[in-house]
Amino acid sequence: MTSALATELPVEDGVLTGAFDQIRKYVRTTPLLRSDHLSQLINGEVLVKAESLQITGAFKFRGALYRLLNLPDKQKKQGVVAYSSGNFAAGLAAAGQLLGIPVHLVMPHDAPATKIRNARYHQANVTLCHHCEPSREEAAGNMAKAIARSECATLLHPFDDHELIIGQASVALEIQEQLRHWQKPCEHLLCPVGGGSLVAGSSLALRAQSQGQTSVWAVEAEGYHGMNLSLQQGKRCRASGNLPCDCDALMALEPGIANLEVTLQTGVLGMTVNTKQVHNAVQLAFSELNLVLEPSGAVGLAAIMKSPERFYGKTVVTIASGGNVDQQKFVELLS
Amino acid sequence: MTSALATELPVEDGVLTGAFDQIRKYVRTTPLLRSDHLSQLINGEVLVKAESLQITGAFKFRGALYRLLNLPDKQKKQGVVAYSSGNFAAGLAAAGQLLGIPVHLVMPHDAPATKIRNARYHQANVTLCHHCEPSREEAAGNMAKAIARSECATLLHPFDDHELIIGQASVALEIQEQLRHWQKPCEHLLCPVGGGSLVAGSSLALRAQSQGQTSVWAVEAEGYHGMNLSLQQGKRCRASGNLPCDCDALMALEPGIANLEVTLQTGVLGMTVNTKQVHNAVQLAFSELNLVLEPSGAVGLAAIMKSPERFYGKTVVTIASGGNVDQQKFVELLS
Repeated sequence: MTSALATELPVEDGVLTGAFDQIRKYVRTTPLLRSDHLSQLINGEVLVKAESLQITGAFKFRGALYRLLNLPDKQKKQGVVAYSSGNFAAGLAAAGQLLGIPVHLVMPHDAPATKIRNARYHQANVTLCHHCEPSREEAAGNMAKAIARSECATLLHPFDDHELIIGQASVALEIQEQLRHWQKPCEHLLCPVGGGSLVAGSSLALRAQSQGQTSVWAVEAEGYHGMNLSLQQGKRCRASGNLPCDCDALMALEPGIANLEVTLQTGVLGMTVNTKQVHNAVQLAFSELNLVLEPSGAVGLAAIMKSPERFYGKTVVTIASGGNVDQQKFVELLS
Repeated sequence: MTSALATELPVEDGVLTGAFDQIRKYVRTTPLLRSDHLSQLINGEVLVKAESLQITGAFKFRGALYRLLNLPDKQKKQGVVAYSSGNFAAGLAAAGQLLGIPVHLVMPHDAPATKIRNARYHQANVTLCHHCEPSREEAAGNMAKAIARSECATLLHPFDDHELIIGQASVALEIQEQLRHWQKPCEHLLCPVGGGSLVAGSSLALRAQSQGQTSVWAVEAEGYHGMNLSLQQGKRCRASGNLPCDCDALMALEPGIANLEVTLQTGVLGMTVNTKQVHNAVQLAFSELNLVLEPSGAVGLAAIMKSPERFYGKTVVTIASGGNVDQQKFVELLS
């Protein structure tokens, strides 16, 4: 599926802060919670940005809202179509409901039930996709494309889109505001990466705001580490996708074209984590911070637990998003 | 055990806001999360004050910190002793660690392991109490008294203390600040009640700030509803304590003397919830809000689900505290 790169990506700080100002009144300011355990582990400061508490339980609501707010009026009336494994679906559905814009979603049939329920709860029309070839994301993408054509609706890409990048950048800007209170610089920022809009937005925001003092990390699940491979090779690469994976929100095989362009320019670094490490991180978030994280939301914590020496003595912020996990799955993760 | 009512309780607004200013830099501003499901249920607004995300996972840190900050220097040096079923223990331990004040705690041997671990993590000296007569709280209280005498340390009561009330009032003041953003008045505030310092502080703060426009509710677990009985009778009454109960933080049989004095003066209302209702509320907090709540932290949500008609069309805030629950117990609650 082609991405939706209709415009040049603006990197001026004013564009990003302007976007944040535009969506600020609709989004939740999510808390930045210190993890005493991980701070001790790295002999520094580990702060967890709990985007699992964002509206619809993930940062995706921010980008979706900004995207819809800036749609021309005619397109707003005709509605939008998108495919998503779940968190973008719920975020887009909630944003559409808020703004009165019809939303039609294509979701993989094996997406977590809670994510499908969330999207329907916010009045979206949901079509389930049962195909898995070439990948479940790409099959759903092709179906969304066909629906958009037949409904004369606007097709949105779930992550490869300049306006999504700009919307997601608000997470990093909010972190910067909160860190002023702590009077500490953010030396490392860890982002969970599926298609890469969050890490692209974050690295743009921090480049503008911190004069490059922050190392931004793309953290991916093993076997689905297309961004990591692409950063190593300096060009778009595809992961195999042939490992079992609980991180259903991070299963894109390739990074978005726009996202990779940004992450290469801004010098984003890469890390991967495995299933066992992610499970341990979900348990830590539960027991220390009283947060419910889905596996995808815990990869940043897992990365710190995997390689604490990389962050020794530093101030590290990890974005924990999302928190949408089926009850039965969460029971398994804790057991 | 006698309460620690050394001073007259000040009810001037300036005292409460002054206390909040004093502790503000140490405590977390916890988020106020809208529950779409419960808002729909009452055809109004239900906002959840997630004090489960406070430092040590409960509002108790606020009162404990204020109490220790205002201790005379000599007493700070000699340290403090207290008994607690868990959340006050962890809050006091963390406050003591922060301020360099030695803390010795007596906890029931059957307190959740996570609460005992939390207290020890923050460097408190913890003694487990194996007695359960006349009640586990009172047995632990007697042991704490003996330790304080032998150690020449200051004995603190876990809830019946004017300065704790003043410290806990900061939760309601913070809610009022957050509601200005929503431009809505708080028409009902629901507080979980064990000994009653939170509901006492909240009702004082709201009386001062909202000119009595807010109904404040003391929500208790059935069988442990000493505050409800006392409010009905207009005098201190004792609950039977003879029902099985998951709300380990709310098992005090009688309200604190100081707390009851305030709640009678300010016209606090009462509700009780049963075990099944609490379990449903824990599940709702998990599935809708991605919050981990211990049963005691979910009684306010349970009260809304039990009697939505009482809150029809109104703006309701419920304080969700705490979030400290053993992993195995949480698995049972979700299963």
